[in-house]
Amino acid sequence: MEKSATLYLVPVGMSDAPYSSVLPAGNGEIISRLKYFIVENVREARRFLKRVDPGIDISSLRFFELNRHTDSDAVAGFLEPLRRGDDMGVMSDAGCPAVADPGALAVAIAQEEGFRVRPLVGPSSILMAIMASGFNGQGFSFRGYLPIDDSEKAEALKRYENESRRNAMTQIFIETPYRNSKLLKFLTDHLSDSTLLCVACDLTDPDKEFVRTLNPAGWRRLMSSDPSAVNIDKRPAVFLIYAGDRMEVQQTKRKNHYHKRNSINKHR
Amino acid sequence: MEKSATLYLVPVGMSDAPYSSVLPAGNGEIISRLKYFIVENVREARRFLKRVDPGIDISSLRFFELNRHTDSDAVAGFLEPLRRGDDMGVMSDAGCPAVADPGALAVAIAQEEGFRVRPLVGPSSILMAIMASGFNGQGFSFRGYLPIDDSEKAEALKRYENESRRNAMTQIFIETPYRNSKLLKFLTDHLSDSTLLCVACDLTDPDKEFVRTLNPAGWRRLMSSDPSAVNIDKRPAVFLIYAGDRMEVQQTKRKNHYHKRNSINKHR
Repeated sequence: MEKSATLYLVPVGMSDAPYSSVLPAGNGEIISRLKYFIVENVREARRFLKRVDPGIDISSLRFFELNRHTDSDAVAGFLEPLRRGDDMGVMSDAGCPAVADPGALAVAIAQEEGFRVRPLVGPSSILMAIMASGFNGQGFSFRGYLPIDDSEKAEALKRYENESRRNAMTQIFIETPYRNSKLLKFLTDHLSDSTLLCVACDLTDPDKEFVRTLNPAGWRRLMSSDPSAVNIDKRPAVFLIYAGDRMEVQQTKRKNHYHKRNSINKHR
Repeated sequence: MEKSATLYLVPVGMSDAPYSSVLPAGNGEIISRLKYFIVENVREARRFLKRVDPGIDISSLRFFELNRHTDSDAVAGFLEPLRRGDDMGVMSDAGCPAVADPGALAVAIAQEEGFRVRPLVGPSSILMAIMASGFNGQGFSFRGYLPIDDSEKAEALKRYENESRRNAMTQIFIETPYRNSKLLKFLTDHLSDSTLLCVACDLTDPDKEFVRTLNPAGWRRLMSSDPSAVNIDKRPAVFLIYAGDRMEVQQTKRKNHYHKRNSINKHR
């Protein structure tokens, strides 16, 4: 069914946490066998590989850089080693590759050509934020970035908030880190009083991590009473909102099965 | 800002893979310190804990069962140890807790009462399926189960397919395992010719795992030429569809920022 070479999706750390607390030991064994890597940034990739395997011979490895500067027509060429039968790895600058980064194009081409694709386990800020938010993990949408323009941002936010209320779907956003505080302020100013907002910041960092869920009034109180506690500028953060019924989050796999059907009947 | 006790979200395995290939070693150190657990199934939880720490004294641990049979009014009571200052763990039967299982209600209450919540790293079939699909990882929706009734299912599928095409959003579903083959057939019969369908099955299982992305015609060919290769009944599987532009998947973080703004202008 599949060709013999494998494209491995290799998660990396996303904080100063020791790798033993965020990456399975087994990943290292696989990584040490790979000679070809598609990476978001070669320097970061080299640093990661040296930390995983201090004895690694970096000069024997070949790197292909896939980032926002990469001509997408060049990406198919990066997979030449796979076609010759050599396994390859895909790595992002932080967390899991092909989620919220450009690596997915390499995966898409590998899938199209019938190569085996194996995702390895590692930290994902989006997934960990969903887990820790207390929001519905049985229905969620990752929306990437909100529009920059304030009126467009308010309009998009209203649309996602309505979608969350109507279908009990958790809505997830990210922001460029230096705009995080501005977005937090915007969210607390524009969300309905009853919508919950979760901020997940510095995930996996044993000292700086926090994941906090409050309503807009709770966030405003916190921002005025303890501004340093919510100083999230230039720190990696994920924003989540939930306007659905709280009981939806407890529905279990099977119950959910029937429940969803009913809620679709009810809502549409 | 937060109270002293911590609610840990503890991922477990989801296949016969050795834990060293799917769980960071650091998780074990945290788990060994915990005395109180909120779990989907006590027997499964005990088995997991014994495998993580063979010397563990199970009789000294206290378990609270949170699953579809649990009265939701009882869940707040499960957090008593946290209120007394003891750390607790939340575990699902497979993969990451509070994603596609009932554990999120315990997290919601812990957040409401201001306890620290710390998600640990582990395998998530949804996230790993997104990574390996080659689909857009910069915008995606997890929809849980499709409706059971065929005409409702077809209608929901059309709606999600349109949403995928319009906003380049990957759409993700699950099914009760004994209906997996039926759903695969349904999807290949009802999706547009140009929509891509990914099936991610037995993730993390070193022998049985496959993640395959094809168009409906490709799936039909595979099902008739090699039925055993796509016999997914009673095997854990995630289904993903993508009807957006392929180039969307390469848009990078910053480019995406502007791009999304433009696409919102364009589409709405």
